[in-house]
Parts: sequence; structure tokens; C-alpha cells
Amino acid sequence: MAALARSVLVTGSSRGIGLELVRQLAASPRPPQHIFATCRDPEGPRGKALQELATQHSSIKLVQLDTVNLPSIQRAMQAVGYHLKDQGLNLLINNAGISSHATLCSLDSQEMLNVFATNVVGPLQEFLPLLEQAAKAGKEGLSCSRAAVINISSKLGSIGLCLHVPEAPMYPYRASKAAQNMVTRCLAAELQDKAILCMAIHPGWVKTDMGKEEAPLTVEQSVRGILTVLASVSQDTSGAFLDWEGNSLPW
Amino acid sequence: MAALARSVLVTGSSRGIGLELVRQLAASPRPPQHIFATCRDPEGPRGKALQELATQHSSIKLVQLDTVNLPSIQRAMQAVGYHLKDQGLNLLINNAGISSHATLCSLDSQEMLNVFATNVVGPLQEFLPLLEQAAKAGKEGLSCSRAAVINISSKLGSIGLCLHVPEAPMYPYRASKAAQNMVTRCLAAELQDKAILCMAIHPGWVKTDMGKEEAPLTVEQSVRGILTVLASVSQDTSGAFLDWEGNSLPW
Repeated sequence: MAALARSVLVTGSSRGIGLELVRQLAASPRPPQHIFATCRDPEGPRGKALQELATQHSSIKLVQLDTVNLPSIQRAMQAVGYHLKDQGLNLLINNAGISSHATLCSLDSQEMLNVFATNVVGPLQEFLPLLEQAAKAGKEGLSCSRAAVINISSKLGSIGLCLHVPEAPMYPYRASKAAQNMVTRCLAAELQDKAILCMAIHPGWVKTDMGKEEAPLTVEQSVRGILTVLASVSQDTSGAFLDWEGNSLPW
Repeated sequence: MAALARSVLVTGSSRGIGLELVRQLAASPRPPQHIFATCRDPEGPRGKALQELATQHSSIKLVQLDTVNLPSIQRAMQAVGYHLKDQGLNLLINNAGISSHATLCSLDSQEMLNVFATNVVGPLQEFLPLLEQAAKAGKEGLSCSRAAVINISSKLGSIGLCLHVPEAPMYPYRASKAAQNMVTRCLAAELQDKAILCMAIHPGWVKTDMGKEEAPLTVEQSVRGILTVLASVSQDTSGAFLDWEGNSLPW
């Protein structure tokens, strides 16, 4: 099996799904040459698991990236560009995100905006030149091995499903994920001509700090599913909203 | 024909669709008893058309309300509550909104957040007690005459349609309207038991300052359609996304 991509960047990789993505990518039979594992504080105590992982795999480079801080994003882009030496970045996985359990009554507008800032805006704009570079150098067709933006979304961001609202209102989180899905679709339409694939993926309800212990899926299962889906996506799935098993979800 | 509702509040009513909603409501054969026409500066030069309208119809009360300023929302709620004297507010039309034509390249995160603040968050939370009061006093079933929140949305907020992105990227506006649609659906689910109807409506592409002169619809046509749709909605349409002609739109 070919490598998923020559170079991959994963945001929010100090724990949960992000950490496991880095772990499984690095441990795969044909690992990417460059795995940029980014988080807010890779040198600090919260980056410990990532630091240990990096000592075992030379493909992993830790990069500081706070997705709501533009200078931090720009520094990260420069560091990544330096390592890639004109070859561009193949795969950007926007995984960093925050949850919010605010209900209609407990909601405050500042919290709503904080969640939007982290979950919707993200670092794409700054990394676009690196993705374009990889797309230009790639073979025909759209794929994660050529150039792709994968947004880790959530079934809770499906307006059509709108699951169990009274029990799990989570207004800011849901609204932010619906907005992120819109951005994914717009990007897919806008970047198709540049041969950059864009897709939203629901990782399932996973036992992480965000998903809690009662979640049915382990992070290993979810990430194994996600990576299998990513290896198979093409032009036809650009702009899609799939789950970790490859099923299509309604917007 | 019965009045659409005994009391109606319209945000962003100094111009465009908001102003025309106030005008047509006030001029209808059975007008609401109270039409609260809110905008940021009703006393200033931008409130001039509204001021003139209010001199012709005693049902219209001008109320200062800046949808991104919590103290302003709270003052507006108190002023409205004072006029309503324990009868509650029947119909809240969240019409205030801003556009943004930012493309992927011109996008900046602060603009994205400004658009979210205006288009998604809104004044609902503060007005909920007044809507609940009206719902309790009302007859069976859900309707605009009993208690309803109508969010003026946009077809450009339909993720499923995702119309003409390369020609009209408008990332912040689209994402904010998708997020607002999610909030509408969550509200419809959460407030159904309280007998409050919630719905999103697309006014069409209208000749306003936002829609520009090349738009195919006049504001009179759009608002006539919207008011006809609102008069007919019920329990079955709570949580729906309809256009000004009553057609259902995909999320």
C-alpha cells in the first residue's frame, strides 16, 4: 500500500483524535515522510505524549500552532515550508476544536464566538500556498496523496439530523460545526480547479476528553476508520460529509 | 383575515426587508396592536424612514436595539415588556444581519467573527421570557399568532445548494447563515414543548442595499410573500427552512 501522503499536518495533535492520527500515521507500514504534529504548547506538559511519540519516529516534527493566533499560524507555516523544501504540503487535517455544552439558557455570545474562532476559522488560509504547491507537483485527479484539506467535523453539526437537541443542546458547538461544513463545501467548490480536495469527516462518538468515557468508539477504532476513508477519497468525494466508516451524512 | 399576531418585533427595521415588514404589517387590514420596530439608531438620520412611518401608524413603536450589544438588548426587552403589560410577545422576527463578500483570500478571522456575532447570536435569549408568556396565554397548536421566532436566513446559507461558490464565495456570510440555520433547528426542537414555533425563511434575492439593484425581486414582493408564508405556518413547519414562496430548501 502506498503512503497516504508524503506530508501531513495535523492540528490539535497533543491528545485525543489528533494524537492518535499522528501515532497511526507514523506507525503505518509506509509512513509519510513528514508528519507535522501541531498543538498550542508542544514543549509543555500537555505535549508530553506527543514528545514521547516523536522520539520514536523521526518522521514526526512538533510545531507550535495556536489556531486562533495569526502570528502563531504564520510562524508554523514558515517552519513547515522550510522542512518541505518546495515540495508543498499534501494533506492538512484540521482537527483542533473545542466543545461547548451551553444550552439556550446558559449561552453567552462570547462563548459562541470563542467556539467559532477555533472551530470554523482555522489555519487554512495561511497554508493554502503550500497545498497549491503540492497540487501542482501532483499527478492527475484529486486525492489525499496529492493535496487535500480534511476538516474533522461532527454528526452534531448535521442540521438535517439535528439529533436529540433537548438532551444535548450544545448550541455553540453545533452551530460552529454547521458553519465549518459550509466552509468545507465552499472550499471544495473553489479549490477543485486547483486540484485540492476538501472534505468533512465525522470521527464517530469517541472516548476522548471531549467525547467522554461513555462513548462507544475507541480512539484507535475511529482513527483507523478515518485513515481508511482518507486513502479512498477522490474527485467524487470532494465536498462530501462522510463518517469514519465512509457513510455519507446529511448537511 | 385575522391579524398575523397581536404583537411583533422586527430587528434591523430601519431599511430594506425590515422596514418593509414594518410597513406592510402596519398597513394590513387587521394590523398587529404592537409593532416594535428596532434598529441601532432609531432617532438618527438612518432611522428617518422609520420615524416617518411611525407618525402614520400608532401601532409602531421605535425601540433602540443593537443585536451585538447585550445592555442594549436588555433595555429593549424591558421597554417592550412595559408596553405589552404581561401579555408577552407573539412574534420575534430576527431580520438584522450583515453581509460580507470576503473570499478565501481576502478573509480575515475578525471579519468572520463580526458577521457571526450579528447574524447568529442575536437577541433571542433575552426575549425568550416574553415569548414564553405569550405561548402560555395562547390557544392550542403552534403559530405566528401564538408565539414564534422567525429567522431571516438566506439560500446562500444552504450547504446542500452551495450555489455558485467561485462567483460568490462570501465565506463569512454563508457560514454565518448555516450556523443560524442550525440554531433555528435546535430552537425548534427545544422550544416545541413550550409551544414556540421557530423557522428560517429565505426572503429571495431582493433589491436592497444588501442585494443590490440587479436582484430580481422588489422588497414589496419579497415581504408580501414572507407575510403570506408566516400566516400559514404551524406545528408541521416548525424547524423548517422555507423561501418567501413557501418552498422548502435543503439545509
